[in-house]
Amino acid sequence: MPTTPTPKRPRPTRSDAQRQAILDAASLLFIEKGFAGTNINDIADAVGTTRTALYYYFPSKEAMLEVLTEEVTEKASALAQSVSGRDELPADEALRLLIEQHAGLILSHPVQFRVVERSESSLPEPHRTAAQGARRALLNHFMRVIQRGIDGGQFRRGTDARIAAFSIIGMCNWSAWWFDSRGETPADVVAGTIADFGLRLLRPDKARRAQAVGIEDAVGQMREALEVFEAEARRANRR
Amino acid sequence: MPTTPTPKRPRPTRSDAQRQAILDAASLLFIEKGFAGTNINDIADAVGTTRTALYYYFPSKEAMLEVLTEEVTEKASALAQSVSGRDELPADEALRLLIEQHAGLILSHPVQFRVVERSESSLPEPHRTAAQGARRALLNHFMRVIQRGIDGGQFRRGTDARIAAFSIIGMCNWSAWWFDSRGETPADVVAGTIADFGLRLLRPDKARRAQAVGIEDAVGQMREALEVFEAEARRANRR
Repeated sequence: MPTTPTPKRPRPTRSDAQRQAILDAASLLFIEKGFAGTNINDIADAVGTTRTALYYYFPSKEAMLEVLTEEVTEKASALAQSVSGRDELPADEALRLLIEQHAGLILSHPVQFRVVERSESSLPEPHRTAAQGARRALLNHFMRVIQRGIDGGQFRRGTDARIAAFSIIGMCNWSAWWFDSRGETPADVVAGTIADFGLRLLRPDKARRAQAVGIEDAVGQMREALEVFEAEARRANRR
Repeated sequence: MPTTPTPKRPRPTRSDAQRQAILDAASLLFIEKGFAGTNINDIADAVGTTRTALYYYFPSKEAMLEVLTEEVTEKASALAQSVSGRDELPADEALRLLIEQHAGLILSHPVQFRVVERSESSLPEPHRTAAQGARRALLNHFMRVIQRGIDGGQFRRGTDARIAAFSIIGMCNWSAWWFDSRGETPADVVAGTIADFGLRLLRPDKARRAQAVGIEDAVGQMREALEVFEAEARRANRR
């Protein structure tokens, strides 16, 4: 019998699972005791393995922090880059994608994200500079899409694209501090809600009225306009 | 000559300034080296004073962290409480106030805020429980005002008040990670922009059309409605 061909995407091995268990335990300890206050023995104890077995996966706790940082920081900027360059996408669709992806990443790695935020100063170079660069890149991708929407009229003119980008990224990032994956609302619903908020806070003030009204809407619109005329007429009569 | 009467609000004394300098230096060191990695000597060196002089103000670095935490966490909840109980305020005005106050607090204490976020696990009891309680109270004040606005029709029906509160608080809190007080945009402008975003993301979908239109707006509205009728008529003729 021929041998089984190598699968294109290998399934996670026992070794991958162990590596992830180490990273999860390290994250929780870094949050609880701080990066400086945690040592390799604590992590080995939490995983239920030996210090030596742990060194097979990671040479040091700094190496663990590097991987944790890459997983959230560099991944976030790579995801955003895959959207911000697609100029054929309408700016609002692009922003929805950006937010859903970024919030989705944070919501699936909340503890790691808090560790990274907390321990950036413990990250050895050149990883620290790389993380800062990735963060700046993420901001630029959001700003680029928001500015394109402002210039194209999909988003409100006069909006400060930088403050808007920081505010939207902030809504996403802050979910790492409050989201409970065992709670009532699943992560994809939270990500969708945050995307909806992000788009709403950028909506132009008058766009909605002109948008896609049918006969019924138009009748309502005329009735409202007539009410304004009536009110004005009453006011004029009173003078 | 009579003696000068005691002023009601005493001006900051040299001792207040020294106390604040200690807290500022401690904040920066806690951010840079972590709470566990900082000792009293480091702080005394940074302020340019002695360990003994420092003990005159604070018995320990834990006591400094307690004060830093109170300044941002308990102050935030007290500020929010002063607004959320005022049911005579329209919900949108109340929310604007809540956001401007909370963002204002964060923007005036960004480093402290990050220290507190980062070091909560190092805070001794009962201060840790108090800080968690203050955080929950802040959330509840925001949720209460948002829910009142949803029920009263000022905010969009169907909005999840909890996710909205977390998202708005997140926009405010995240400013601690990006705001630069030496930058171009002053804190009050940033706070106002965030408040504006917070209100926009809750606006009802149709409220704007009915809101405060004058004669000129009403004419525009009727013209738009007529265009819809015209388009429909053309479509009907083509059939």
